[in-house]
Amino acid sequence: MTQVESAVVLLSGGVDSTTALAHTLATGCEVKAAVFVDYGQRHLREWKSAEDVTQLYKVPLLPLNLRAFGASVASVITLSDYEVPPGRYAEHAMGASVIPGRNAVMLSAAAGIAASQGAQALVIAVHAGDRTISTDCQPRFIKAMSSALGLGYGVGLSAPFVHSTKADIVRRGNELGAPLHLTWSCYESGAVHCGRCGTCVERQQAFHMAGVPDPTEYADRDYWWSVCEVTA
Amino acid sequence: MTQVESAVVLLSGGVDSTTALAHTLATGCEVKAAVFVDYGQRHLREWKSAEDVTQLYKVPLLPLNLRAFGASVASVITLSDYEVPPGRYAEHAMGASVIPGRNAVMLSAAAGIAASQGAQALVIAVHAGDRTISTDCQPRFIKAMSSALGLGYGVGLSAPFVHSTKADIVRRGNELGAPLHLTWSCYESGAVHCGRCGTCVERQQAFHMAGVPDPTEYADRDYWWSVCEVTA
Repeated sequence: MTQVESAVVLLSGGVDSTTALAHTLATGCEVKAAVFVDYGQRHLREWKSAEDVTQLYKVPLLPLNLRAFGASVASVITLSDYEVPPGRYAEHAMGASVIPGRNAVMLSAAAGIAASQGAQALVIAVHAGDRTISTDCQPRFIKAMSSALGLGYGVGLSAPFVHSTKADIVRRGNELGAPLHLTWSCYESGAVHCGRCGTCVERQQAFHMAGVPDPTEYADRDYWWSVCEVTA
Repeated sequence: MTQVESAVVLLSGGVDSTTALAHTLATGCEVKAAVFVDYGQRHLREWKSAEDVTQLYKVPLLPLNLRAFGASVASVITLSDYEVPPGRYAEHAMGASVIPGRNAVMLSAAAGIAASQGAQALVIAVHAGDRTISTDCQPRFIKAMSSALGLGYGVGLSAPFVHSTKADIVRRGNELGAPLHLTWSCYESGAVHCGRCGTCVERQQAFHMAGVPDPTEYADRDYWWSVCEVTA
């Protein structure tokens, strides 16, 4: 990142991308904009978090509407009887590849926005924990996409946390004073984090492993402990 | 292509992609579907051509709706005062990169559809003439995208005409008995090809260079000759 002078950051409103934004600004890189991808799914609460975070950092927030893409491919998938293995629903739901091609489309579209903004790089918060879920989060995929998007549009991908765990990211966010209390992870659309869904469990575990006090309000604060094997 | 057993073909309804479909079928490859990208621009006539061609070949036609992507990025481009160099409008209009990222998004989305159809490859009709226009049509970009999409979704890109001229494609289409009379190139939305726009001129020149009788009805059949330097 030290050689990148200007970037666009993909911001979901969660812990990882909020820390990526803080990290990018801390390197002295100009952040031209944060791009929020609107899939048409549970996005209102996440969008609010992305707005709060970018207002704090005084970075423009640009929505990228990919709703029709998702619907278009999903309808094709339905036609071809594509099935998510039932037993692995939660694992799939936590990844980004329930819709094949979606991560590549998101990176391509956001790189297009970065190019139009005159930014050298697109920063993405993919981390080591993502790799177990889908092939389109793995370092070699990111590297290949970076090569392609660099050739096509002069925009490279920067993935500062590609070798980090989510706990590493929480620790880094805490060091940087990133507004982790403004971030949102929960899959449910309640007033506060449910504490029981896959991403709520992952969030609580990451704060615990990082040794950072979790500022989040959970409807159920104890559930995660019962489903995780955590070594303190 | 000889090792590819099943593919999805990107079909715009033009000469190049119609010939790519004919070529792919001629190699013995199963074509699971043809994907037509709907950008929300002058698409009705092209869509009709794509329908006619796929009906002839008995290949399913799948529309891919990328209208919202185009609108989303275009609005961002407007905000950032992105400008197409005025003197090069026609050149840009003939390419696919008026909207940065669009070719990468299209390939990614269509590869996602190919993956969901169980196809090994996505066939694209990019050719040598495209390269002068935009970096995201060049062989090294196609190769890098193929690498990324192979890693992410198990789908490789096949670009059988990447080293061919448009005249080569017309010649190949003619050899294969491809329904070039059903294809559409014109940027205007008339009942017949206008004969004067950039793609009409390119189309007529290609048939001429190929030495293949042009089956197309043009409103103005003589204009192209006056703007081209053609060596017979």
